[in-house]
Amino acid sequence: MPSFPPRLIKRVVSDKDVKRTYAADAGPEPRDPAHDAASDYTVVRARDVEDVVAVLEHAAATGTPVVPQGARTSRVGGARASEGCIVLNVEALDAIETIDPLEGIAVVGPGVVNANLKAAAAEAGLFYGPDPASTDTCTIGGNVATNAGGLCCLKYGVTADWVTALEVVLPGGEVMRTGHRTAKGVTGLDLTGLVVGSEGTLGVVTKVVTRLVPAPDPALTALATFGSLDAAVRGVASLRLDRHRPSLLEILDRASVAAVQSFGDYGFPADCEAVLLVQSDRPGHAAEDVARYGELLSAAGALEVAVAEDRLEADLLLQGRRVLSTAIESLGARIAEDVCVPVGRLGDYVRGAAHAAARWDLPIPVSGHAGDGNLHPSIVYPYGDDDARQRAWGAFDELMRLGLMLGGTVAGEHGIGSVKRRWLVEEVGPREVERQRAIKAVFDPAGIMNPDVVFVTAGRPGHPD
Amino acid sequence: MPSFPPRLIKRVVSDKDVKRTYAADAGPEPRDPAHDAASDYTVVRARDVEDVVAVLEHAAATGTPVVPQGARTSRVGGARASEGCIVLNVEALDAIETIDPLEGIAVVGPGVVNANLKAAAAEAGLFYGPDPASTDTCTIGGNVATNAGGLCCLKYGVTADWVTALEVVLPGGEVMRTGHRTAKGVTGLDLTGLVVGSEGTLGVVTKVVTRLVPAPDPALTALATFGSLDAAVRGVASLRLDRHRPSLLEILDRASVAAVQSFGDYGFPADCEAVLLVQSDRPGHAAEDVARYGELLSAAGALEVAVAEDRLEADLLLQGRRVLSTAIESLGARIAEDVCVPVGRLGDYVRGAAHAAARWDLPIPVSGHAGDGNLHPSIVYPYGDDDARQRAWGAFDELMRLGLMLGGTVAGEHGIGSVKRRWLVEEVGPREVERQRAIKAVFDPAGIMNPDVVFVTAGRPGHPD
Repeated sequence: MPSFPPRLIKRVVSDKDVKRTYAADAGPEPRDPAHDAASDYTVVRARDVEDVVAVLEHAAATGTPVVPQGARTSRVGGARASEGCIVLNVEALDAIETIDPLEGIAVVGPGVVNANLKAAAAEAGLFYGPDPASTDTCTIGGNVATNAGGLCCLKYGVTADWVTALEVVLPGGEVMRTGHRTAKGVTGLDLTGLVVGSEGTLGVVTKVVTRLVPAPDPALTALATFGSLDAAVRGVASLRLDRHRPSLLEILDRASVAAVQSFGDYGFPADCEAVLLVQSDRPGHAAEDVARYGELLSAAGALEVAVAEDRLEADLLLQGRRVLSTAIESLGARIAEDVCVPVGRLGDYVRGAAHAAARWDLPIPVSGHAGDGNLHPSIVYPYGDDDARQRAWGAFDELMRLGLMLGGTVAGEHGIGSVKRRWLVEEVGPREVERQRAIKAVFDPAGIMNPDVVFVTAGRPGHPD
Repeated sequence: MPSFPPRLIKRVVSDKDVKRTYAADAGPEPRDPAHDAASDYTVVRARDVEDVVAVLEHAAATGTPVVPQGARTSRVGGARASEGCIVLNVEALDAIETIDPLEGIAVVGPGVVNANLKAAAAEAGLFYGPDPASTDTCTIGGNVATNAGGLCCLKYGVTADWVTALEVVLPGGEVMRTGHRTAKGVTGLDLTGLVVGSEGTLGVVTKVVTRLVPAPDPALTALATFGSLDAAVRGVASLRLDRHRPSLLEILDRASVAAVQSFGDYGFPADCEAVLLVQSDRPGHAAEDVARYGELLSAAGALEVAVAEDRLEADLLLQGRRVLSTAIESLGARIAEDVCVPVGRLGDYVRGAAHAAARWDLPIPVSGHAGDGNLHPSIVYPYGDDDARQRAWGAFDELMRLGLMLGGTVAGEHGIGSVKRRWLVEEVGPREVERQRAIKAVFDPAGIMNPDVVFVTAGRPGHPD
């Protein structure tokens, strides 16, 4: 068996405590406590593409599984150590190589934090759209791996709508270049699009070319309170039909608002069943838009509508929305759901979440990107309570099934990871999963790339689902 | 060998003259006159998805090549009969099943004409973006097959940016469903994106789900004349940097303008080296935008700038742009080029086209989607002149090579077809072509789907390139 490449030895994390932090991601505890963590794995922190090549040469030669990893913000166990693997962290590949206003593109390393790309674009008067709630920590490589969405998808789409070319290191160390830096390009099959959303199952992304567009105005925000989730959902539908789509349309229920406010005073009102946050960033018209959105929400039954008086107040509300996830985590262990349903079925899904909360006797705060039909109910339970953990997974399954029944998908923007593999099969069917695996095999014939996610890989120990 | 399915017998075109019209597309004459046309092929006009399934069952059982076909507007020989094939025309699958304003989607058959989808969306106050010059004749199925672009890509992207789900019949008759009708969805590999742009090499698209967005304003148009192509290209760069991107930015050189005006009076000025057409459709600001664009173009060196006084005049100019292709065809045989280069290299490409015209002693009118760096120089030569035909292909090769040298792609929006197969290899390399073929084999193991396009298929007779 080939020995570990010398150039990588100084990239290996040897401190046990530090190493353990690279084994985990932001996904839930597994269903089965026996599968809580991998025991045998190596962590490599790559500094450059040559390091990545060396890892993938070695991995192919030795049949070692590789788990590519950025900031470990995966909600679905997409970036956690699996048994016997090399965890390949690429956070240090964080160069912003190019911001080109004329061509309207950026060229960046996979380790660039989403907010840093946005900031670099903004300095040039440009805008990068995809905007996960974890913008301040998540990396572009992970965004590409999951085809991440976020808060602005209603107007600006998801990561796949922005990526035009990739550099990807494949098992064995081959460097594949896909796509185009030009505005258009149709040269056979679109392998860029195939890699986006593939969750590290094909190779390791080492460079990303994205589109940039002229910057919109700073967003203004309106906040509406509702006496019921149903009324809020009616408000969402009326905003969807407005001629000027909001750049953001988020929902938080009573429990979510309480979680945010217990974390810090972000200016959310205490006494209502649901809050909608809506923004416009339309150049020259943001104030007019949010005023009109407010009227539409009043007509849909809002109790109160408040327009953020200034940018500071608007930013504070958004910050509140962004800390929601952390705030909910302070309540206990949690499973973050990610079903996306047709907007017309949002009400049915919200009612279903309430039903699941009652049935499984667990708090399930509801929040998410209502304008896309993409909700993230959080199933919360006390750490260390195995009975509650089982009930939480029961509620999870119920919410998945409901999403499919309503014509939705089990994974709006977080991906399948290790957590939703069986639900992938439910949604697309075993035949489609087989087809996807056959395509994976073109890139990764030995099945070493992130083998415990997306597809159920035969013979792998420690399946956490 | 299984006999021809009875349900298809009445779908076969038996009239020889009619049949011949289904053998051809809008691509150029092949390099080698010996390969001008297939002699042995069957034409089936499918009426529904069951017909398509029957064809693909029969084709797989008999090893018969299948050429899927819509309106035959392919510029690259992507939809023409190949030796021994079944030409499978799906124009009759032209139902607009759904236009859903709340979800913002359309569900249509592949035979729906692009302009008809646009019109149906407009009736609901909505907008479908992709806008090939052939909008009045080309079909959505063909748009999906080629990932078609068009005149509005600068602001609205290409077909891939709009398609969210597909129904595709595969060799053997299996019906594959890909993607999502919801706003987001990440369930494993993105097979929707893989099929878009695959030029009929994987299967036959029988249903398309596209995004729709709120309708913009009717576009207003400015026209600027220039004393040189270089000055026009400078104008393009300055418009690219404007904060409000034009919805359209087209260039026509002197020969292109002359061709249009000889076809009919579309209001183009006679005496200049180049014309830029630029539009804005920004709600409430189109007039302000085109006025500002005009100032930018004057500053870039425009001789004259005229703003279309009303919508009628604006439409007339656009109609002129749209008939350009037909007008050029009236000049003789032609090869329509489709290189896309970085916008910053547009000037180099335009100069290269002039150089090729002089060197090969052929007229090469230059036009195209300047705002995307996507030009369509047309290499024109007299029908029946074999020497000129050879020179035309020499010029074609020169323009391809130039596009690659400038960091561009050999296929901006028309695809590879049969015409650019060798240039696909030049651009992406033999290894990437092998990878694409391996992915094709997952869907089409026997290699019967459109076997003479994109990839060079070993052992096929009558290669037209």
